Amino acid sequence: MTDRIRRFLRDKQPETPCLVIDLDVVEFNYKRMRELLPQAKIFYAMKANPAQEVLSRLGKLGSSFDTASRGEIEQCMAQGVDANRISFGNTIKKERDIAWAFQQGVRLFAFDSEAEMLKLARSAPGARVFCRVLVDCGGAEWPLSRKFGCAPEMARDLLRRAAEMGLEPYGVSFHVGSQQTDLEQWDRALAQVSQMFYALAETGIDLKMVNLGGGFPARYRADVQPLEAYCEAVQRALVRHFGNRMPEVIIEPGRSMVGDAGMIQSEVVLISRKSASDRKRWVYLDVGKFGGLAETMDESIKYRLTTPRDGGRTGPVVLAGPTCDSADILYEKTEYRLPLALKVGDKVEIQATGAYTTTYSAVSFNGFAPLKAYCI
Amino acid sequence: MTDRIRRFLRDKQPETPCLVIDLDVVEFNYKRMRELLPQAKIFYAMKANPAQEVLSRLGKLGSSFDTASRGEIEQCMAQGVDANRISFGNTIKKERDIAWAFQQGVRLFAFDSEAEMLKLARSAPGARVFCRVLVDCGGAEWPLSRKFGCAPEMARDLLRRAAEMGLEPYGVSFHVGSQQTDLEQWDRALAQVSQMFYALAETGIDLKMVNLGGGFPARYRADVQPLEAYCEAVQRALVRHFGNRMPEVIIEPGRSMVGDAGMIQSEVVLISRKSASDRKRWVYLDVGKFGGLAETMDESIKYRLTTPRDGGRTGPVVLAGPTCDSADILYEKTEYRLPLALKVGDKVEIQATGAYTTTYSAVSFNGFAPLKAYCI
Repeated sequence: MTDRIRRFLRDKQPETPCLVIDLDVVEFNYKRMRELLPQAKIFYAMKANPAQEVLSRLGKLGSSFDTASRGEIEQCMAQGVDANRISFGNTIKKERDIAWAFQQGVRLFAFDSEAEMLKLARSAPGARVFCRVLVDCGGAEWPLSRKFGCAPEMARDLLRRAAEMGLEPYGVSFHVGSQQTDLEQWDRALAQVSQMFYALAETGIDLKMVNLGGGFPARYRADVQPLEAYCEAVQRALVRHFGNRMPEVIIEPGRSMVGDAGMIQSEVVLISRKSASDRKRWVYLDVGKFGGLAETMDESIKYRLTTPRDGGRTGPVVLAGPTCDSADILYEKTEYRLPLALKVGDKVEIQATGAYTTTYSAVSFNGFAPLKAYCI
Repeated sequence: MTDRIRRFLRDKQPETPCLVIDLDVVEFNYKRMRELLPQAKIFYAMKANPAQEVLSRLGKLGSSFDTASRGEIEQCMAQGVDANRISFGNTIKKERDIAWAFQQGVRLFAFDSEAEMLKLARSAPGARVFCRVLVDCGGAEWPLSRKFGCAPEMARDLLRRAAEMGLEPYGVSFHVGSQQTDLEQWDRALAQVSQMFYALAETGIDLKMVNLGGGFPARYRADVQPLEAYCEAVQRALVRHFGNRMPEVIIEPGRSMVGDAGMIQSEVVLISRKSASDRKRWVYLDVGKFGGLAETMDESIKYRLTTPRDGGRTGPVVLAGPTCDSADILYEKTEYRLPLALKVGDKVEIQATGAYTTTYSAVSFNGFAPLKAYCI
């Protein structure tokens, strides 16, 4: 929590639950990433937090934007971002949305399948396209499965055919998994990707860009290596595999731009035990899985919590949200401890919740309003 | 899908994805439940679908309402439902919301812990309260875990203390788990609950009500026994355990009131394979886990799908939503087959999606609008 957030909460006493975003931290994160990986062009993955103040601040700093839908492109352009700084990075697009984006001036599109490439050839003729490839992504806390990307051989074929159909085969993207903790993953991925560059060059197709995706972490409960270490690992891998034939480099950070810029303040609604001999207290907050903390699904993301009673003796707890849904439990298997002195009505602060919270929150599940956010 | 829904879709051609609810089916479900379990008072669990047209129709039919929050109570009263037909059934309530509800005239409240009982004693003096007890709930497709309820011994103590503090210890509730498939669960639960009635009667406290919760199923992909069988099992268990000392009976159906009354129409956005040798096609719809199909979490609820190409040869598929989130996969482990002739742009209908869809949908994750609903 920054001083600015602390001051805001003290002065405004907003109703809980709410998220407070410190825009100066977003700016700091952007500038640091620019410094640590100067050759990379930053496309902010706006799905992480599309608050207009965040888009506007990053836009003014010169950021480009990775978007997932027509809705996101509209939000971005509403903040004065030019279409040439927008990538339509979702590999799953309706053809009418492709045509619309192309008409707006968007010229950079992702794909990972034949059907999507054909849509692009028809509805975004001449656009720059990049193919997402499947890379092995062990080590990520929010793993990516196989939903996106295709096998490298298929990607090579599709890029060749894209050229034949009048598209500009611009590059290749991959994603090592969100909140990736194993730095070697970028090296393994870039090894595969550089092979594709060489193989395609032999058939006369010169790819110009490699898109490293996201995956840079935010600091949750567990220690992560500093961003410097990540950027050095990426830098080393780029040099090792591309040498003096370095392509244009794109990164799509989301979580690492806004995660630690925000904090959710919540209130303890209830503390109880299920029986006289229950070892764990159940602590129910006024925010849960359906109010913005969706990334606690399978207890994947383990947020840091602070309370006004910190410092005293603690005991184990199960942490849950306020809805009547039994799936609305944040941490039951993961060991969490909270002060024994914690009381109903106390504020609990959920740290580093600037990414993947507001937009995940349900419209009005159980009659609870979506998570409110304040950008300061 | 009913004829009315079919006609609506044909005539209006609404943009996908959307949910269409046939209110006549809701009415039919309500009346049938009344007929099959005439001694039970129905408190519709409005969290399943709080569309104002649904609340209004059920309100006119005489239904009472089980609510989870101040927001739900407001929605309910906005449809002309009197406070004496409302139960504040969430065991996790802010004290200021209890006080507000009491002020509105709500007189029936749930609790399952000492802290909550104390809030009720302070802020809803004299109200009827019922204690939720933990029962074993194997057999449910959407299991309830231990989030709600307390051990029967604790419930007995708390009900006794509630009386001492000026509350009216009105009854006991339990929930066998949503989409419960094992009919014997009600018998096992009622055996425990009736013991509590007898034990408390010996100390001079006469409970008046047993609240059977929900758990009655909707018909998804797997066959379920007819509602008649469920109601007979409940009836038999009530008679076996309460005999001629039958208490007032409350049920809180949600899913079984609205589940089969609604249908989501979606569009195929993309069909692809990950490599030339991929055995399964990936079929991406324009609705997914964050657009209303949250109950596919862990592939729990398995919806029935229909397509305009049904009847021809089929092949195995992975089914996914349109967002850039890799968790947005509906069915990957569960075997789903779709026609080989299925094409991008085809409509896919997701049957029996009237419950737990609209309100679960995310505010605007990835820039996609929440699920639209039409009540007809």
